[in-house]
Amino acid sequence: MGNALVLQSDFGMADGAVSAMYGVALGVDPTLRVFDLTHDIPQYDIWEASYRLIQTIAYWPAGTVFVSVVDPGVGSDRRSVVVRTGGDQFVVTPDNGTLTHVKRMMGITEARVIDETVNRLPGSGASYTFHGRDVYVYTGARLAAGVIDYAGVGPQVPTDSLVELPVIPSVYDGERVSGTIDVLDVRFGSLWTNIPRSQFELLGVHQGDRVEVTIQSDTRTVYRNLLAYAHSFADVYVGEPLVYVNSLDCMAVAINQGSFARAYGIGTGTGWKLSLRRAPRIVYE
Amino acid sequence: MGNALVLQSDFGMADGAVSAMYGVALGVDPTLRVFDLTHDIPQYDIWEASYRLIQTIAYWPAGTVFVSVVDPGVGSDRRSVVVRTGGDQFVVTPDNGTLTHVKRMMGITEARVIDETVNRLPGSGASYTFHGRDVYVYTGARLAAGVIDYAGVGPQVPTDSLVELPVIPSVYDGERVSGTIDVLDVRFGSLWTNIPRSQFELLGVHQGDRVEVTIQSDTRTVYRNLLAYAHSFADVYVGEPLVYVNSLDCMAVAINQGSFARAYGIGTGTGWKLSLRRAPRIVYE
Amino acid sequence: MGNALVLQSDFGMADGAVSAMYGVALGVDPTLRVFDLTHDIPQYDIWEASYRLIQTIAYWPAGTVFVSVVDPGVGSDRRSVVVRTGGDQFVVTPDNGTLTHVKRMMGITEARVIDETVNRLPGSGASYTFHGRDVYVYTGARLAAGVIDYAGVGPQVPTDSLVELPVIPSVYDGERVSGTIDVLDVRFGSLWTNIPRSQFELLGVHQGDRVEVTIQSDTRTVYRNLLAYAHSFADVYVGEPLVYVNSLDCMAVAINQGSFARAYGIGTGTGWKLSLRRAPRIVYE
Repeated sequence: MGNALVLQSDFGMADGAVSAMYGVALGVDPTLRVFDLTHDIPQYDIWEASYRLIQTIAYWPAGTVFVSVVDPGVGSDRRSVVVRTGGDQFVVTPDNGTLTHVKRMMGITEARVIDETVNRLPGSGASYTFHGRDVYVYTGARLAAGVIDYAGVGPQVPTDSLVELPVIPSVYDGERVSGTIDVLDVRFGSLWTNIPRSQFELLGVHQGDRVEVTIQSDTRTVYRNLLAYAHSFADVYVGEPLVYVNSLDCMAVAINQGSFARAYGIGTGTGWKLSLRRAPRIVYE
Repeated sequence: MGNALVLQSDFGMADGAVSAMYGVALGVDPTLRVFDLTHDIPQYDIWEASYRLIQTIAYWPAGTVFVSVVDPGVGSDRRSVVVRTGGDQFVVTPDNGTLTHVKRMMGITEARVIDETVNRLPGSGASYTFHGRDVYVYTGARLAAGVIDYAGVGPQVPTDSLVELPVIPSVYDGERVSGTIDVLDVRFGSLWTNIPRSQFELLGVHQGDRVEVTIQSDTRTVYRNLLAYAHSFADVYVGEPLVYVNSLDCMAVAINQGSFARAYGIGTGTGWKLSLRRAPRIVYE
Repeated sequence: MGNALVLQSDFGMADGAVSAMYGVALGVDPTLRVFDLTHDIPQYDIWEASYRLIQTIAYWPAGTVFVSVVDPGVGSDRRSVVVRTGGDQFVVTPDNGTLTHVKRMMGITEARVIDETVNRLPGSGASYTFHGRDVYVYTGARLAAGVIDYAGVGPQVPTDSLVELPVIPSVYDGERVSGTIDVLDVRFGSLWTNIPRSQFELLGVHQGDRVEVTIQSDTRTVYRNLLAYAHSFADVYVGEPLVYVNSLDCMAVAINQGSFARAYGIGTGTGWKLSLRRAPRIVYE
């Protein structure tokens, strides 16, 4: 039995694209085990593809091969790469920024460019719009099945040559921690920031305390309020907002059984900033 | 090869939550076979989670382990349990009513509370919002893979201590059968009631006969009409409504190739009642 | 290990229908490998089911068993068949036109009608609305697992007795190629025509040249413009429309990182015609 092959894309599941990729993988090795990360990445959204990888990759065994195809540059001269992560998983992807979070948070120990003279589905010559099927899953399946080893992917390149999207790190200024809203917990409308719990704890706030949350979109203040810092959703009333530690050990903001994002029209990206400070004492005089 | 592991949740498939659960399961045993029931349960809708379990569980082999995570109380003191069904499958779930239909219709022979000192993903200490990944799928995978036996889950508790949602049984009053609209056949807009075929047959109606269908939402009559009791959709015209026996052997109402629910604004739950009686003879004098 | 079993339907994934089919398949053989093509075929849309099969089937190994259930006639006397394709895969389906594209483009070498006295899930007598579970997946799983051989499906019937949907072939009239818009690349809004690349090449147009694209809905001209014939999306600006060869080696029209279908309200089917000709020389005098 080979290693697991895990697919991610922005193709959706409504047509046959993902199934064609599965077929190619099983054509390489009919015993291969193929899984999905998600195929609902918003179209062309490389940032979210990068984030979903770091959200899940650490939970998969060493040796797992991820294939991520969010590829607005398909058919251009963007490189196709396979990297080895700090956790000894592999990621097959266009080199367009999809590896940003994995590189920063987990590390990338080695990178190779796919040699398409060897690693391209035989007979897939004339179409240049579906590298996911013809190059990426074919290469990933061969690697997961052991048909090729990692060196068989193609020539090594420096890991610092990999394309990275701009990231603004969270900061602690002695009084507040500030970061960006990286992504939504889609179904529940929670805001996931890039502020690590360890940094937040510098504020000296404890569970049960109140925290002042400020959200800014570029120069506009969109939200400011005092929220409970809760152990989990069940510690606040239904409909009450809260600050909590999310499943990636970063700070998040939500409404218990509601959607914070929809309630206040909150978006994601480096233009959306969230800062946290100890709640002020309110004194009536 | 272990037993099958089948996952259900209200997480959707748009982010990495389900894939992280898969990774945890394969980390327990890389040969484990993992499947999805659905991840599109409406958020926090325990009733629908309970219904989807009974809709499918009987079709899976004995020994199959289901993990159902619709968990509005995550982080509260609600219990986490693993039950053994009358069909010798297992269900891992928060004890919040998710087992209502399985208990009533299939039976639960034994219940155990998860001992999290043993059955919790190592290293998952600080986040308290994703028990689906850190406790439920980890425990389910260990049980399916045979790493633990059923007793290894934790201490036994009485099955009558399990939380059940209120259910209103269907009734036959000598003239009509009345029940509730439990759920929709989502894609097709059909109404699925809790009226068993055997009870409906007490009316002495035969296929091809007409049936008077009355739908009430609390005190308001929303629909009343005479419908064909048909063997299947193909027995009526396209666009014609019908009464039929659904795939759970209960009575259902639909429009052939239309959506009954959308046509008349019908909802589900114990506030939505549907009754059936023999069509009256219509006499012009 | 048996052959792969691949499921397609219009059931969606929001309820338990697909999972019940998986359970039946694993009840036949717990080692069986089951996959999805898609379950998001628009309800009752036999044409699209037919198209998604031809989009993917060639990428799956010989011996693979497809089960396709888009079945508006469930419960009628429409036949249930299993065919063997020119690529030695099998397709289990109601005989309602679902095999149209596979028959025309890949070929069908043999057809058999399912003998339901043998090939029906034991105990599934009273419900007549879910043949996908009770007949099709049960038969497909038995065939994939080798419990029955192909002759065990039921009696052979002539392949020319299979129901086919009307198809209008693309034509080259010496000046232009004209065809129909068969289907959308759902997520990206691209138009996929039935015009093969080889026929388009009769125009003598080369990549980088401009092509006049005309789209008509019945008698109305909906779109006419000069577009680049590009190798791939990356050869045009973001937001620019293009003509290209799709992943089925047919001609397609798209907007780079936009949705052509939504931009111009384009639909699919034999009422939607698209024609291509060399761009005229535009001479200012």
